[in-house]
Amino acid sequence: WDWVKSGHDAWSGWLCVFLVGVIAGAVAGMIDIGTSWMSDLRFGICPTAFWFNQEQCCWNTNETFYGPNNCSHFFLWPEVFGNSPEGAGGFIISYLFYILWSLLFASLAASLVMMFAPYACGSGIPEIKTILSGFIIRGYLGKWTLLIKSLGMMLAVSAGLSLGKEGPLVHVACCIGNILAYLFPKYGRNEAKKREILSAAAAVGVSVAFGAPIGGVLFSLEEASYYFPLKTLWRSFFAALVAAFVLRSINPFGNEHLVLFYVEYSKPWIFIELVPFILLGVIGAVWWCGGGCVGCGAWGIIGTLFIKFNIRWCRYRKTSLLGQYPRLEVVMVTVITAFIAYPNPYTRMNTSNLIYLLFSQCGVANSDMLCDYQRNATGANIPIEIAAAGPGVLQSVWLLALALVFKCVATVFTFGLKVPCGLFIPSLAMGAIIGRLVGIGMEQLAYHNQSWAVFAGECSSNENCITPGLYAMVGAAAVLGGVTRMTVSLVVIMFELTGGVRYIVPLMSAVMASKWIGDAFGREGIYDAHIILNGYPFLDSKDEFSHTTLAHDVMRPGKNESFYVITQDSMTLGDVEQLLRETDHNGFPVVVSRQSQYLVGFVARRDLNIAISQAKKNTEGVVGESLVLFTASVPSPWMGPPPLRLRKILDLAPITITDQTPMETAVDMFRKLGLRQTLVTHNGRLLGIITKKDVLRHIKFLESEDPESVLFN
Amino acid sequence: WDWVKSGHDAWSGWLCVFLVGVIAGAVAGMIDIGTSWMSDLRFGICPTAFWFNQEQCCWNTNETFYGPNNCSHFFLWPEVFGNSPEGAGGFIISYLFYILWSLLFASLAASLVMMFAPYACGSGIPEIKTILSGFIIRGYLGKWTLLIKSLGMMLAVSAGLSLGKEGPLVHVACCIGNILAYLFPKYGRNEAKKREILSAAAAVGVSVAFGAPIGGVLFSLEEASYYFPLKTLWRSFFAALVAAFVLRSINPFGNEHLVLFYVEYSKPWIFIELVPFILLGVIGAVWWCGGGCVGCGAWGIIGTLFIKFNIRWCRYRKTSLLGQYPRLEVVMVTVITAFIAYPNPYTRMNTSNLIYLLFSQCGVANSDMLCDYQRNATGANIPIEIAAAGPGVLQSVWLLALALVFKCVATVFTFGLKVPCGLFIPSLAMGAIIGRLVGIGMEQLAYHNQSWAVFAGECSSNENCITPGLYAMVGAAAVLGGVTRMTVSLVVIMFELTGGVRYIVPLMSAVMASKWIGDAFGREGIYDAHIILNGYPFLDSKDEFSHTTLAHDVMRPGKNESFYVITQDSMTLGDVEQLLRETDHNGFPVVVSRQSQYLVGFVARRDLNIAISQAKKNTEGVVGESLVLFTASVPSPWMGPPPLRLRKILDLAPITITDQTPMETAVDMFRKLGLRQTLVTHNGRLLGIITKKDVLRHIKFLESEDPESVLFN
Repeated sequence: WDWVKSGHDAWSGWLCVFLVGVIAGAVAGMIDIGTSWMSDLRFGICPTAFWFNQEQCCWNTNETFYGPNNCSHFFLWPEVFGNSPEGAGGFIISYLFYILWSLLFASLAASLVMMFAPYACGSGIPEIKTILSGFIIRGYLGKWTLLIKSLGMMLAVSAGLSLGKEGPLVHVACCIGNILAYLFPKYGRNEAKKREILSAAAAVGVSVAFGAPIGGVLFSLEEASYYFPLKTLWRSFFAALVAAFVLRSINPFGNEHLVLFYVEYSKPWIFIELVPFILLGVIGAVWWCGGGCVGCGAWGIIGTLFIKFNIRWCRYRKTSLLGQYPRLEVVMVTVITAFIAYPNPYTRMNTSNLIYLLFSQCGVANSDMLCDYQRNATGANIPIEIAAAGPGVLQSVWLLALALVFKCVATVFTFGLKVPCGLFIPSLAMGAIIGRLVGIGMEQLAYHNQSWAVFAGECSSNENCITPGLYAMVGAAAVLGGVTRMTVSLVVIMFELTGGVRYIVPLMSAVMASKWIGDAFGREGIYDAHIILNGYPFLDSKDEFSHTTLAHDVMRPGKNESFYVITQDSMTLGDVEQLLRETDHNGFPVVVSRQSQYLVGFVARRDLNIAISQAKKNTEGVVGESLVLFTASVPSPWMGPPPLRLRKILDLAPITITDQTPMETAVDMFRKLGLRQTLVTHNGRLLGIITKKDVLRHIKFLESEDPESVLFN
Repeated sequence: WDWVKSGHDAWSGWLCVFLVGVIAGAVAGMIDIGTSWMSDLRFGICPTAFWFNQEQCCWNTNETFYGPNNCSHFFLWPEVFGNSPEGAGGFIISYLFYILWSLLFASLAASLVMMFAPYACGSGIPEIKTILSGFIIRGYLGKWTLLIKSLGMMLAVSAGLSLGKEGPLVHVACCIGNILAYLFPKYGRNEAKKREILSAAAAVGVSVAFGAPIGGVLFSLEEASYYFPLKTLWRSFFAALVAAFVLRSINPFGNEHLVLFYVEYSKPWIFIELVPFILLGVIGAVWWCGGGCVGCGAWGIIGTLFIKFNIRWCRYRKTSLLGQYPRLEVVMVTVITAFIAYPNPYTRMNTSNLIYLLFSQCGVANSDMLCDYQRNATGANIPIEIAAAGPGVLQSVWLLALALVFKCVATVFTFGLKVPCGLFIPSLAMGAIIGRLVGIGMEQLAYHNQSWAVFAGECSSNENCITPGLYAMVGAAAVLGGVTRMTVSLVVIMFELTGGVRYIVPLMSAVMASKWIGDAFGREGIYDAHIILNGYPFLDSKDEFSHTTLAHDVMRPGKNESFYVITQDSMTLGDVEQLLRETDHNGFPVVVSRQSQYLVGFVARRDLNIAISQAKKNTEGVVGESLVLFTASVPSPWMGPPPLRLRKILDLAPITITDQTPMETAVDMFRKLGLRQTLVTHNGRLLGIITKKDVLRHIKFLESEDPESVLFN
């Protein structure tokens, strides 16, 4: 039995992350299925089985069913009302239903969030980063948040808003991890251990969001987690594997290749293409260079102007009447989004489908107008020759440009609404559009200048040497990299999304360029920016602390402040109770005597309160004059009322530093050891205390920001 | 100018890793080219240009040139001497030349290593792990090691020994990193900073070894590095990118796909296949379960017997006469390897080619006897039907089984020779053979039992539903996982090697199973095992320290030992010099007075020596009776000889813990803060000191091993 017990203890972590993986995979599968059904509901209904989405409805027919081309089993709304979907009447009915369904979904999502779980709005990743760094936000990972966020995410995505469900899925997975941790006392009762489960859950979230298990693990490592030891790495890996497997068993993408945006290009990239690839990285970085709100500046000066507008909008929302009517705002944004999105086929379609379309290569089977080149239809095995763009390509370039502008504007207004909303898919879509446009430009440049030396090697044989789809892929990675400042994890996610391992150098170059340019603008990634905006107490482990201040300058008490300590054997219960009333510190150092101030240990307020109330209940004769003793032995002979012996609640091993310790070292200790406070001594005497709060305030102060803008728990 | 200088300071890290990437990429390219040329030299020569290898020699012909089928430009040795390569005479000449060249290469490699750089032998990864954990091995990363390891690696691989060049490439990259770090004072002069460069260099090594930049970064993170902050992650990513780009520009693989073992399977995997996949993981793990030497037990009980034999061989080598004649041993192993390897085509060929062959799918173009199935030759576009194995498959199964046994035995005897040798490629090859055999078995099982429920879904339509090549890939990952205990990095390396992102779930399952089974056997991965075997002072960050001892139990002085401290203002120069003579400690705590023992700071022996000798030289009147003062001010009025004022060399911020601190916390601090020692106090009084040495001894003691088996610097 002991063997079973110790086995359970050793394996409970693995079992817990296994369960997180299974449940998160199942939840994500349900969300995918629900989203797909509701999205299609805006276009029509499957009369034979209304719970089928368009694809499932058309499953057994041999007709094509993507985009507006529809199989006869699935009734578009005009068809339901007996109109032809082609005519003007049909168009109006379609348009109307599209807007009405969007409105219904969006207002339902906003109402659910407002009524049941206000924490369910937004992407949740900044908060999860903060929680993983040690801050506790009660209820943020609770069951109501889980339920409402799952529902709200389906509704918000189905409403056609410019948002994705990837960030919220990370939040949902973390909720599942948090709830399941309580089944295992080893994890549920210990916040530090619970964070190990949450780190794995964050990996699971990305794993199910993109079907990218390795990318998920690296996301958790690079972006989400604060402390990520190898044990957590392995558990995350296992959990992500399980989740990906469960999700694929449900198979919501209905994709044989098991890769979300599977791409296959017939030509490798050529050297000169690195220039536009790196350029895409630069564009991606310029994208996000405003603080606070999402910056949508695709090109240089336009970008900076745009960012100012965004920040103003975010401030306006916070301060104006609009902030008091979040539901109205959601409804307005939805109606305007749906109204503008419908006429343009590239914004009308599902964002995932748009990304897939932009990533793909023009082949024989691809009948979209993006592939309308002036060449003869060739057989499947004959290499596609490079050709001049046809009218369809020109038209789609215009439509894509409009779609890009629309997506930029819409995303700015959407991010920050009181519905669950992620930024991954919109960022990928914007990047894919930019990339595809650049790619088409390069392709035509190569076509018209086949004799240029840089193109000569590959393009001279009249084959198609430039693949615009690859540009879309690189652009998507670049913009997402600019927004989130992820590097390794982003490249791996792109692999797993597209299967394009061969394009590792272009992807890495663009992502690296994106990160550098972004960092050169001196701004944080979007999650860190939101952490600052919300004032969470997050001690960033990426920034170097390069100031020369000493612990002595930061510790409290400062000058003219009093320092509250407890002596080990000379304070009465009354003194201690008064101290507890007068201060709100989380704990008190215990010293040998008030004169010598030699440090004995540290006692937490919480433990002190419990011990005092228990002693009053259980021990007779405890009065205000009872001595509170932290020493190992009671001096004998003992006189007076019975003493309170509290050595067992005393932490005899508090972390201490000397007053001459550089703050660089101290900050390093706070980060690496996950401290909440450290005691400052000089020649063994206690001088003061530095809490995490003091460190954060100090950093804000050194950066000339308002030290009081940090929230604390 | 200041701006330039600060810019240089900020960017010198990036510049340094950039240079590491460029040079390592170039070196790896040269090594690849040289190895390929020398390997082919064993078979024949290109008379038109002797510096061409077989592939380059046949470049411009349309003939096939792989394997024994040879183009007319490349002369096999019998042809050089006017014999036909087909007859008995030709066979004997080929055989002889094969053995002679191997012998020449191997003895040259062993001589170079012995004469110029003894550190160049082995894989080098255990030592690099140790160096990255803070140990210093002088000359291990020097220019001679770099040169000799590069040359020796080419020679040893060309000699056809059962070893790879991947591990040694990591060592070579780290040498480059170490040498280049001296160009940047910020990194060259600071061991901790230099380790950041070395971490990036380790990533570069794997990046160029496999053409796997992301896998390299993760290898450095998961396996090689001790401390891997995000800044190092980004630099490693950049360096690996640069190295991969340089290597691909040189393009030694001559592979259009830019992926080493590019695979493309026409069918996805089916559910039932997870069973053999996980089984492969188990086999892979059982592989490595002996300590010290490489364990080669593929199946259960045979494995354990085998391991005992291996350990005996390693011990035998260490203790017997054989250990004194390493060159003789190399020669003997080479002759025997070449003698046995030549007759079997699967061992005669290059190990990389063997892996590629085993990974690949049987298609129309593949004429190897592995693909001799009883089916009609079909066109390229018609799906291949499942078929019974022909005589060629049966023959190749036998040959592969023999090759497996040979590789096992050969690898056991090869690993440990005094030549550069890595384990990655042999492990991959063994795993690929096991996997291919299991895959062929599964395929025939499915063919003969198409009606079984588990096969019904995919195999019933007579198409080929099982791909043995995929099994080879999974098996290779599993065995390598069992040997090294890598997880995430291994899966990513396999992706980048093969492009098989679609097979993520099988790969992850096998690797996870491999790791679990391996860990259940309670043994370390091969690198950790070698660290223990060699007694390096490596504080493993993976193991949890789960004992309940306190700092008090570990600290020195123990009972009846004397403790050497310096007082801040009462010791004379003579006392201090006597202390330095009597002890060999690296430093001494400074206390207020010998009676009170309140801690003031810590002074390093090195600094003390320098300060004393400088004072003697520069200050007049310093004699043995001069007081050594660590206080801020000199007591006045001062009488007697001029005092030595040493406060400036005193570290006023030593890390301290209390005597009641659990060793779990203390070990955690040693690991995370990279400490070399910590001082132990009680109520502000200094009680003792704990050094890293004490911690390592204590861990060995608790694990009932010999505490004195650890080396120290």
